[in-house]
Amino acid sequence: GAIAKKWLKQRYGVEIRGYMSQLGEISIPFQSWDAVNENPFFSPNRDILPELEAYLDNIRNERDSVGARISVVAQGVPVGWGEPVYDRLDAEIAYAMMSINAVKGVEIGAGFASIAQRGSVHSDEMMPEGFVTNHAGGLLGGISTGQDIEVHIALKPTSSIPQERRSIDKQGNAVTMQTTGRHDPCVGVRATPIAEAMLALVLIDHALRHRAQCADVVCNTPKI
Amino acid sequence: GAIAKKWLKQRYGVEIRGYMSQLGEISIPFQSWDAVNENPFFSPNRDILPELEAYLDNIRNERDSVGARISVVAQGVPVGWGEPVYDRLDAEIAYAMMSINAVKGVEIGAGFASIAQRGSVHSDEMMPEGFVTNHAGGLLGGISTGQDIEVHIALKPTSSIPQERRSIDKQGNAVTMQTTGRHDPCVGVRATPIAEAMLALVLIDHALRHRAQCADVVCNTPKI
Repeated sequence: GAIAKKWLKQRYGVEIRGYMSQLGEISIPFQSWDAVNENPFFSPNRDILPELEAYLDNIRNERDSVGARISVVAQGVPVGWGEPVYDRLDAEIAYAMMSINAVKGVEIGAGFASIAQRGSVHSDEMMPEGFVTNHAGGLLGGISTGQDIEVHIALKPTSSIPQERRSIDKQGNAVTMQTTGRHDPCVGVRATPIAEAMLALVLIDHALRHRAQCADVVCNTPKI
Repeated sequence: GAIAKKWLKQRYGVEIRGYMSQLGEISIPFQSWDAVNENPFFSPNRDILPELEAYLDNIRNERDSVGARISVVAQGVPVGWGEPVYDRLDAEIAYAMMSINAVKGVEIGAGFASIAQRGSVHSDEMMPEGFVTNHAGGLLGGISTGQDIEVHIALKPTSSIPQERRSIDKQGNAVTMQTTGRHDPCVGVRATPIAEAMLALVLIDHALRHRAQCADVVCNTPKI
């Protein structure tokens, strides 16, 4: 992940960064990238930190856990990476993200919000200066558009909680079990660097595939 | 897709069925599987059909389009299909679903709703009679649990709408373009059989992998 991020940055100027966009019920409005690495939540919002801390302390005291939403953005991705049918770039991103433990959902761009959007709202118009919006999340037809690639993932609450839970033993008899030891009340807190690494690994694969297919031929489509 | 569905049914009793669970803003409550193949929406709810028809007629008259949510369920999947790290069953399902045109999001089980769930709610307890709930959507750690595999996908609104949209030409000059001809106001209406086929193809791959690894050794874990 780290090597892929570094090479993509040096070779293509691609910048891959993630942040926590929701912790349990608390939605985290994006303020700045600078804030992300200053706090253990990877929150892009400094003002909300006391609320996040109090919320998670409360969850821990209740011997419970919560989920989180992590967003990852790749900026500066060249136009044309990906494939139109097999190994689409969005499909490989979905595969990589769903491979992360505890992930139960993956969205590209507007994701599930696009269900209720009208076509006249969702589809991103182009002007000579560039795209007007980015509901597509930088991916159309499995191929990068040159806009920011935006991915969102849902992480479920930690399974191991120090409460009595019903289960069965090997013979199928009813038992109760309680997890002890150190367990995070939210595994999503640790997920941001993992999601960044996954996106970087998929992008470097497609950078190499694109280079193998197109060599370093320069496309004269106007940069927008 | 059809062959995979048939073989999985004959060999393992696996039944794979999908339905439309949301059309634009309209959520479609599940009533019965029988209803699904009686109407062109693949709606599992007969009572809502007049509303869906009026809604989509209105969208068409406005020369616009909307998205849809499709749900696919695989019942009777044996315990143990999948892989724990590479080629996890949930990751391959996400890959297959995101490969479908217009899909912008994939959820397994509770999906994005699991973000705000507590661990004490999300994690599915077991009783001698079986699991109490199925928030996991039949998949834990990349491997089938024997519960129904539940997948939800988000389809964006049709891009081709008969309205003037801003774009650019090959030289980067501003142009407007309007799509003409026949275009569905919702591509999601046609997506249910595709999503069923994709799930069947992933499951048959993993059925064969499981058989290659475990032959036909029978597991004596109690059936629940």
